[in-house]
Amino acid sequence: MIIVMKQGATAAEIGAVIARVQELGATPHTIHGRERTVIAVVGSTERIIPDTFSTMPGVERVATISQPFKLASRESHPEDTVIHLDPHPGLPEVAIGGRDIVIMAGPCSVESRSQLLETAHAVKEAGAVILRGGAFKPRTSPYSFQGLGIKGLEILAEAREIYGLYIITEVLTPDAVPVVAEYADILQIGARNMQNFGLLHAVGRVQRPALLKRGMMSTIQELLMSAEYILAGGNSRVMVCERGIRTFEKLTRNTFDLNAIPILKQLTHLPVIADPSHATGRWDIVPDMSRAAVAAGADGLIVEVHPRPEEALSDGAQSLKPERFFDLVQQVRRIAEAMERGIVGSTEVVERAR
Amino acid sequence: MIIVMKQGATAAEIGAVIARVQELGATPHTIHGRERTVIAVVGSTERIIPDTFSTMPGVERVATISQPFKLASRESHPEDTVIHLDPHPGLPEVAIGGRDIVIMAGPCSVESRSQLLETAHAVKEAGAVILRGGAFKPRTSPYSFQGLGIKGLEILAEAREIYGLYIITEVLTPDAVPVVAEYADILQIGARNMQNFGLLHAVGRVQRPALLKRGMMSTIQELLMSAEYILAGGNSRVMVCERGIRTFEKLTRNTFDLNAIPILKQLTHLPVIADPSHATGRWDIVPDMSRAAVAAGADGLIVEVHPRPEEALSDGAQSLKPERFFDLVQQVRRIAEAMERGIVGSTEVVERAR
Amino acid sequence: MIIVMKQGATAAEIGAVIARVQELGATPHTIHGRERTVIAVVGSTERIIPDTFSTMPGVERVATISQPFKLASRESHPEDTVIHLDPHPGLPEVAIGGRDIVIMAGPCSVESRSQLLETAHAVKEAGAVILRGGAFKPRTSPYSFQGLGIKGLEILAEAREIYGLYIITEVLTPDAVPVVAEYADILQIGARNMQNFGLLHAVGRVQRPALLKRGMMSTIQELLMSAEYILAGGNSRVMVCERGIRTFEKLTRNTFDLNAIPILKQLTHLPVIADPSHATGRWDIVPDMSRAAVAAGADGLIVEVHPRPEEALSDGAQSLKPERFFDLVQQVRRIAEAMERGIVGSTEVVERAR
Amino acid sequence: MIIVMKQGATAAEIGAVIARVQELGATPHTIHGRERTVIAVVGSTERIIPDTFSTMPGVERVATISQPFKLASRESHPEDTVIHLDPHPGLPEVAIGGRDIVIMAGPCSVESRSQLLETAHAVKEAGAVILRGGAFKPRTSPYSFQGLGIKGLEILAEAREIYGLYIITEVLTPDAVPVVAEYADILQIGARNMQNFGLLHAVGRVQRPALLKRGMMSTIQELLMSAEYILAGGNSRVMVCERGIRTFEKLTRNTFDLNAIPILKQLTHLPVIADPSHATGRWDIVPDMSRAAVAAGADGLIVEVHPRPEEALSDGAQSLKPERFFDLVQQVRRIAEAMERGIVGSTEVVERAR
Repeated sequence: MIIVMKQGATAAEIGAVIARVQELGATPHTIHGRERTVIAVVGSTERIIPDTFSTMPGVERVATISQPFKLASRESHPEDTVIHLDPHPGLPEVAIGGRDIVIMAGPCSVESRSQLLETAHAVKEAGAVILRGGAFKPRTSPYSFQGLGIKGLEILAEAREIYGLYIITEVLTPDAVPVVAEYADILQIGARNMQNFGLLHAVGRVQRPALLKRGMMSTIQELLMSAEYILAGGNSRVMVCERGIRTFEKLTRNTFDLNAIPILKQLTHLPVIADPSHATGRWDIVPDMSRAAVAAGADGLIVEVHPRPEEALSDGAQSLKPERFFDLVQQVRRIAEAMERGIVGSTEVVERAR
Repeated sequence: MIIVMKQGATAAEIGAVIARVQELGATPHTIHGRERTVIAVVGSTERIIPDTFSTMPGVERVATISQPFKLASRESHPEDTVIHLDPHPGLPEVAIGGRDIVIMAGPCSVESRSQLLETAHAVKEAGAVILRGGAFKPRTSPYSFQGLGIKGLEILAEAREIYGLYIITEVLTPDAVPVVAEYADILQIGARNMQNFGLLHAVGRVQRPALLKRGMMSTIQELLMSAEYILAGGNSRVMVCERGIRTFEKLTRNTFDLNAIPILKQLTHLPVIADPSHATGRWDIVPDMSRAAVAAGADGLIVEVHPRPEEALSDGAQSLKPERFFDLVQQVRRIAEAMERGIVGSTEVVERAR
Repeated sequence: MIIVMKQGATAAEIGAVIARVQELGATPHTIHGRERTVIAVVGSTERIIPDTFSTMPGVERVATISQPFKLASRESHPEDTVIHLDPHPGLPEVAIGGRDIVIMAGPCSVESRSQLLETAHAVKEAGAVILRGGAFKPRTSPYSFQGLGIKGLEILAEAREIYGLYIITEVLTPDAVPVVAEYADILQIGARNMQNFGLLHAVGRVQRPALLKRGMMSTIQELLMSAEYILAGGNSRVMVCERGIRTFEKLTRNTFDLNAIPILKQLTHLPVIADPSHATGRWDIVPDMSRAAVAAGADGLIVEVHPRPEEALSDGAQSLKPERFFDLVQQVRRIAEAMERGIVGSTEVVERAR
Repeated sequence: MIIVMKQGATAAEIGAVIARVQELGATPHTIHGRERTVIAVVGSTERIIPDTFSTMPGVERVATISQPFKLASRESHPEDTVIHLDPHPGLPEVAIGGRDIVIMAGPCSVESRSQLLETAHAVKEAGAVILRGGAFKPRTSPYSFQGLGIKGLEILAEAREIYGLYIITEVLTPDAVPVVAEYADILQIGARNMQNFGLLHAVGRVQRPALLKRGMMSTIQELLMSAEYILAGGNSRVMVCERGIRTFEKLTRNTFDLNAIPILKQLTHLPVIADPSHATGRWDIVPDMSRAAVAAGADGLIVEVHPRPEEALSDGAQSLKPERFFDLVQQVRRIAEAMERGIVGSTEVVERAR
């Protein structure tokens, strides 16, 4: 921790800060610059709150030096974490965060059995190994479709059996975590819930992989702090997902912060997934941005696909038709190959496509 | 709803959109401009999802005309809503959203009985009628102080009895709503939970006034949509609160969007509160911004006060010492008077201060 | 300057940084924390570029401690700068940045002699002492009205004679500075030109007060750096102006960053002006935000007024009609009085209004 | 243009709007919805300013339908524009915006003859065909290095002769356009000058290709409006460049808005270049983001390279060392090949690298 004193801070003010540092069990190093005095605090500083000093007379500002996240940091865990999904009878093994790129796809919402099965068939054909679909939907308006709930989970589970796809679905409330974990292979925490700490606690207590989306207002560091909540709770299988942030630009729904992908790869050992559908809000640029995300180093993609986007009950504008998604996977594969990576579980599709 | 076709959209594409509008039970009006064709959709459009059209061939974009919130809108309820707190033995009546400005103040967190009582004494002296204090704290880091929980609620209730102050405290999870509603006079929904829809549903089901804070990257319209969730659930006593949004500026913790205050007063009948402590993150400008918020038309303020900010377990940098808060109330009173408003419940303090 | 080394930086890497600091004539102080080593650099650091170190092996980041602006800083000049406009025959003296608040008003663009004189009459009646109006207009589209140029300056000068109002107008290019300075009492540098350094240089070389607007995506610190350009050029009469920044919120044209007002008053001795017209883009909330800006501590306002906003060639949506502006001044006066300030030069209007 | 009336607008208010539309020579189409009336304006609407209506009583808001840029739009010019640089004796032809990707590279500033020649040698070796380097530098602080001026242009021209590289350099003021155009093969307009309209006018009047960078606060539409200024001035060889926008994220200098690349390719026929150096501010992720930009569809890259970044007088933190830049080009080539594109002019380097 570095405490910068104001220009003209008095000796008494400086002395008070030094005394306080010592009182808290740490060691102050005082450096007298030409304009300002700076006090570096060394020792057990985790328990010291920066505001302790920032409100003392003569203090200009306080900067922290240590990373606030530990379990999520690459410093504490230099190797990449590879997440193995829990095995399911009849399904191939899937590892996320390794050499190959994983593709998750499906509709925004599970709307009906036939809609989901039709989509599952199409995404399987195209090369996805994980099926996405919302059973519980967070909606801005109380008057919008809120999802099919448990019924939606059952439909997802049925699609898993029929098509051999793992399933990922969103969980919205702490009390729904056990039931969603019973059905889903990956628990998704949505952008609006990235700092829903009760939910993070609950997901930390189950043994089921989690995909944590970055909030549209959240910094990369805050995303890792939220991952830390889940890790600290005892669940070590966490992926983080960039899905676009809010800016002034209006032609796209969000601004896809692809810088975050290599930065996250540096800061954390957790797999990094990209969601080009929400990050753009426009199906017509989803293939371009899927290629870009993989080229930037993403370990996987989660893409919205709907057989008839114009009939979708949510997010139609960002959903791809099956044939466009098929093309997308081909394009992504070529980018992955240019980076000496492959697509998880899609060997036979490669064959067919060639 | 207005559907703008692309320049060069074919007659068949236009025809398909028109047919789809009719299929959905609404009436299309087609306007052929020099460059583009526009189709205005009239009739029962609430159930029609814009994305229905935005993915059809030849469509450039779709704009909605109606306000998406109904119960919260001033159009549906032209008069100001005045919220009466539930009466409590020995406490004066308090109305929020009327002629006078209400002041809520207290520490970020309830840290101990003595800290809270000391603060309660000070804020009462200064002219506040409502005591704030967090018992359940949403914290970015899992390693930070998370609040005293039920014990904190009990301390708040004791302070109410001793000092005659109503209490407001945050609720974080749906299942905690009943117990918090039992102790608190106002339920606070924090910025990070503005779109925690499970929580909004739960607060909609109790009969206790709620203060809903704007998310740090939420639009004004989204704030009102979240208020709509609570209102639609059956709880009509909702206040909305501007507490700063996230921008690129780094010298303050957030950017206080004071434009939102008169805009909210136009769009909704609900009382509008301002939180200058979170909106700035700096105690040294909290008095300035409290004056500004009242001058912009806010119906109330919620301010962080701590007897010793340098010892606060959270948000010390934005907490005022009691004597500074006393000054703040005097300054705010003068601004309120310049606008022909007063401060709720502080007649005797006015006398003393003169 | 503080150099934070990466966790695990080697002794050789640390040694190289220390050697480089010494080579550059400064003194390194090395502090070995538990996780990281930090090197504080003391001495003549102005000439040292932080990037010198940020690209060296083992360096995590570099933080600067000193304020990068000197002439503009309150540290170097503790008293408020009061700017006296150059005297003009027949006009009362006007000081900006003192006890009283100055009001500048007029149309976005000078459109015609009659439009300007009509507006000048109205704003004089209401209590303004400075007339604004654009002769050279920066327009997003090449096809929009670009201003009357020199003819516009002549009309402004005529209005000055007739109504006894000082004039402020924008200058767009370095080569136009001398001619605009010949006509205008205050040179305005618009938001889009805040970092047009050629223009700042040119304005620094004339002896005419300047009003420098904050760029819509510029930090407060960058605004002061741009002021520093003008001051360093030899022109000491600079005012800075908050006029709204860009954010994700769409209901207003910009987000009025009123936090910037007290922050600027702390950091600089220069007068701080607020522009509620551009900061909101909506005439209907301009009075509210004018009151708020004065309550936050602004030294003056610059407001758009047009006799018939619906016929304005630019910015009609944010222009007030004369009678609304008259009301605005009355409201602002009451707020100013609540803060023990007055309105510059409007004594007789006060009388008339009472 | 679509005029949305307020709910409850009177017949007289609606009538006044209709009359005004007719007065301005356009045709109103009135659509009475259940809640609101909407008036669609058809005909010659270019000369009608939306604010004409937005301030009339009863009007809620006005939306424009037409694209405000014409010459820059793909609607007006469906084929991609391929820019041929002016031929220079001894240099191969270079086309930008065609099948292959162009790479421009060099230091932020020309600091000395030896620094530039050393860099030119390295970037030529790696496969660049255009050398970048600033002779006139826009700097936030008046105390920072401002560039070598004409001397810098001469050094660039010398490097062109020696290494056979075209040169691109920034022009800051309208009066410097002729001299910079005399030396440079491409005129660069920097992000801070994207709306310096005097400069855009001046660049529109010369016959030299221009690279226009997006302002850090500018929308995609505004970027195209600024391109329109140059095109309307008579200079048809314009490239647009995404270089990052400002957001709340602090770990990178800017947020690289890669969504803008496919969006620009849809909206305009002009070549789209990406600047991963400024868009990230961190050399360590420049290779990742270069790959991503090409995968997103960029027609070229402009990258900062410095032989000794730690000695750079500007932007060292985002400059690559020559060997890293060499690697970057190899990586980018593989991505380009995956998209069936190549790198302009680098056949022999390909050979050598294999």
